[in-house]
Amino acid sequence: MRIDLNADLGESYGAWTLGDDAGLLAIITSANIACGFHAGDPAGLRRVCAEAVAREVVIGAQVGYPDLAGFGRRFLDMSAADLEAAVIYQVGALDGLARAAGGRVRYVKPHGALYNAIVHHEAQADAVVAAVRAYDPNLALVGLPGSVVLERAAAAGLTTVGEAFADRGYRSDGTLVPRAEPGAVLSDADEIAARAAAIVADGRVTSVDGVSVQIDADSLCIHGDTPGAVAIAGRVRSALAARGVRLASFVEA
Amino acid sequence: MRIDLNADLGESYGAWTLGDDAGLLAIITSANIACGFHAGDPAGLRRVCAEAVAREVVIGAQVGYPDLAGFGRRFLDMSAADLEAAVIYQVGALDGLARAAGGRVRYVKPHGALYNAIVHHEAQADAVVAAVRAYDPNLALVGLPGSVVLERAAAAGLTTVGEAFADRGYRSDGTLVPRAEPGAVLSDADEIAARAAAIVADGRVTSVDGVSVQIDADSLCIHGDTPGAVAIAGRVRSALAARGVRLASFVEA
Amino acid sequence: MRIDLNADLGESYGAWTLGDDAGLLAIITSANIACGFHAGDPAGLRRVCAEAVAREVVIGAQVGYPDLAGFGRRFLDMSAADLEAAVIYQVGALDGLARAAGGRVRYVKPHGALYNAIVHHEAQADAVVAAVRAYDPNLALVGLPGSVVLERAAAAGLTTVGEAFADRGYRSDGTLVPRAEPGAVLSDADEIAARAAAIVADGRVTSVDGVSVQIDADSLCIHGDTPGAVAIAGRVRSALAARGVRLASFVEA
Amino acid sequence: MRIDLNADLGESYGAWTLGDDAGLLAIITSANIACGFHAGDPAGLRRVCAEAVAREVVIGAQVGYPDLAGFGRRFLDMSAADLEAAVIYQVGALDGLARAAGGRVRYVKPHGALYNAIVHHEAQADAVVAAVRAYDPNLALVGLPGSVVLERAAAAGLTTVGEAFADRGYRSDGTLVPRAEPGAVLSDADEIAARAAAIVADGRVTSVDGVSVQIDADSLCIHGDTPGAVAIAGRVRSALAARGVRLASFVEA
Repeated sequence: MRIDLNADLGESYGAWTLGDDAGLLAIITSANIACGFHAGDPAGLRRVCAEAVAREVVIGAQVGYPDLAGFGRRFLDMSAADLEAAVIYQVGALDGLARAAGGRVRYVKPHGALYNAIVHHEAQADAVVAAVRAYDPNLALVGLPGSVVLERAAAAGLTTVGEAFADRGYRSDGTLVPRAEPGAVLSDADEIAARAAAIVADGRVTSVDGVSVQIDADSLCIHGDTPGAVAIAGRVRSALAARGVRLASFVEA
Repeated sequence: MRIDLNADLGESYGAWTLGDDAGLLAIITSANIACGFHAGDPAGLRRVCAEAVAREVVIGAQVGYPDLAGFGRRFLDMSAADLEAAVIYQVGALDGLARAAGGRVRYVKPHGALYNAIVHHEAQADAVVAAVRAYDPNLALVGLPGSVVLERAAAAGLTTVGEAFADRGYRSDGTLVPRAEPGAVLSDADEIAARAAAIVADGRVTSVDGVSVQIDADSLCIHGDTPGAVAIAGRVRSALAARGVRLASFVEA
Repeated sequence: MRIDLNADLGESYGAWTLGDDAGLLAIITSANIACGFHAGDPAGLRRVCAEAVAREVVIGAQVGYPDLAGFGRRFLDMSAADLEAAVIYQVGALDGLARAAGGRVRYVKPHGALYNAIVHHEAQADAVVAAVRAYDPNLALVGLPGSVVLERAAAAGLTTVGEAFADRGYRSDGTLVPRAEPGAVLSDADEIAARAAAIVADGRVTSVDGVSVQIDADSLCIHGDTPGAVAIAGRVRSALAARGVRLASFVEA
Repeated sequence: MRIDLNADLGESYGAWTLGDDAGLLAIITSANIACGFHAGDPAGLRRVCAEAVAREVVIGAQVGYPDLAGFGRRFLDMSAADLEAAVIYQVGALDGLARAAGGRVRYVKPHGALYNAIVHHEAQADAVVAAVRAYDPNLALVGLPGSVVLERAAAAGLTTVGEAFADRGYRSDGTLVPRAEPGAVLSDADEIAARAAAIVADGRVTSVDGVSVQIDADSLCIHGDTPGAVAIAGRVRSALAARGVRLASFVEA
């Protein structure tokens, strides 16, 4: 048994710091590094890339809408042509910094509102897929299992990576509990660690309604911007080890 | 005899258009394409890259300060680390778009206030050189002959390309007449074309003081944002042809 | 009979120019001046304010989403709190420039995608209304007749100004033909002028289906970013004069 | 004896938080609130304005260069016209938010690199002074004693407020020790508090060379972005009270 652990990094910006990049890099196997559109300034991104290379953590491009003020968390009705070019631009920019640091971008994970939009939004999903293919068809694409974007990516011949969330509530149909509803986000480290182990080792998670739901995930997402994120991530890692799960990036497969 | 003709392209932004990119691509041999920091949105840049590829015009990254409001024409006191990363970011972003269009970035030309700053500013000059080397040491660097940045670039093993300006006044010491002074910018197409031919075929230009000055240039810069720019560029091309000068990019050498 | 003529101004940005502000100021009675979020840099906005004051054209704040790259033409899913504060910020900024030029902001007209969103989007409509009230309840609010935002504004005690479009096609139910459909935008100056006269003098316009539709408008919007915009505006003005319509801003009532 | 305590507030941006605004508002008498150019999003600025009003802390506009990525800490070579308009724009925007919160902007304090530039840079100093006068000549202007900007402001009839820094080292000529040099920044709370008391009660501070230097200050600046800033500010306040110094804003005079 093996699983990938991914987390969002490089989300500081200029004088503003966010998250504990160094702490997370000691735990995760895949770093979703921001690309400057929702967060991340070039010098900061370069440092994170260098740290990821030093830690042998795989680098992914965490692409988003061009919306610093909204941290990429607000839907922006971009045309397919604009979004496709914006994704290529971001991946290229981060890849440049990654290569200057001795690494390179190996996958793409859309961020925030873009991530959520392309679960259903066909034109934007197609634009993201087209961008990844245009930049490098060998890059993997990380997203929500069952999303339109992963369907389209698979149809286009891209490697797709479905991810699960140990700290998010699931509904009985396997979808996530919306953030505005009760049970959407878990904060207890032990509970999150136990769920992580169940998701990976058993392929199952208990829904907010108490139903055991099947989950097929190639990666577990660790949220880094919550209090105690690194401690939780460490607990998750330990719980997985206790079940004999090996941590490894999906790109090494 | 041969010479390269370069011009700034891709300097539109969203709803705002600037310059006649298609018109210039029919004339020049090297396109300094903006990278989104002083001008250029991703979708527009991608289109210009595609047009350059179709025209077989060599693509260069026209990197600048992050200053859309000032069009990169205002000095910004960036630290070496910030500037170096910003240049890598921009080159990578444009290279991604260029590769998606079937081409790739072959050289770097700093824009506006950055171009002028690194004639003298050692820390920023070193940062630009370090960025080009870190991204790809095979990229050429275009700048002002005699500038600190070209000295440092040559010392670092980069291919350097000194450029001349057929539409700018020169002082008797070979430096450019500052824009605020009389005689700084020429607008007569015939005069510009004649100067272009003299610079390339004779290696000389007449200064504002009437002195014949030696000029060693690997490329001629054509300004695209002036009225009648394309017509002037066409006249320059004809004048060069009349002197038996072949137009060819420096990267083909 | 009297009518207001409004047009979008101040939509240049730094090195990029858009529209013929001076030409339109000679014709219109109300200037919707951009506020820097979708277009307009401070120095340019200040100049337009000064020109409007000199021409005795009433100044309005043309507020938009924070989206320079998209020129405010893409829906952005801002929260009510963020949008309300963003509108206050923009109105205050423009009012500062207007007052420094000897004038002041007298009304607010949302721009682009925000204009369209608040025809239906209740939370964003309420946010715009709340912002105007918080800044100055004596400011008028310009919008589409029948829109949610004008309903809410009227209920909140604001002066509302419904506008008509002489260069847009109407459907038989009085709504605008969407831009993607045939007949959405008219370009013939004579036809536009004739429709303007019919809208104001007769209160009627002929729909794309040939039906005569009633139109109640306090202002006519003149688009300034189309080719020949100033010439069309002049034709509209002449056609209105020929029908005995006096041009006057709604704030003079 | 009385003194004003000022500190920088509102310097968060979207998802990024910086400083303890609420903690400082309990201590200071004047809040230099960012205006969105170097920091501060509209909704966050509005909240800080409301808190300042609730705390009866005087609101000032902390204007800066348009440089989010650099936090306004990098010199930008803006023209006088651009800078003047940018300052009016920022003051107007913040004043709008302040008025919506029941307060209003009472003074202007330039931020970061702009603050430092206008100690010497005449054109930019004049632009800031002209902007304040154009917006509202009753606003006070806070700056470094002896700076060009305060000289010009006084000559223009503005109320000027010279400030001292209890946590910065002074040279024997009364100027600040540059940040790159030893002794530039103090971090010991007791020492800072003692210096604050000496500056206000005695009008003197001890330089890095051990010389007692005369200081005439109308306000003490409290840095809020350092660790323990609120605790230090509280210690300063207590030390001043112990010397019988009353804390009061300069605008109440």
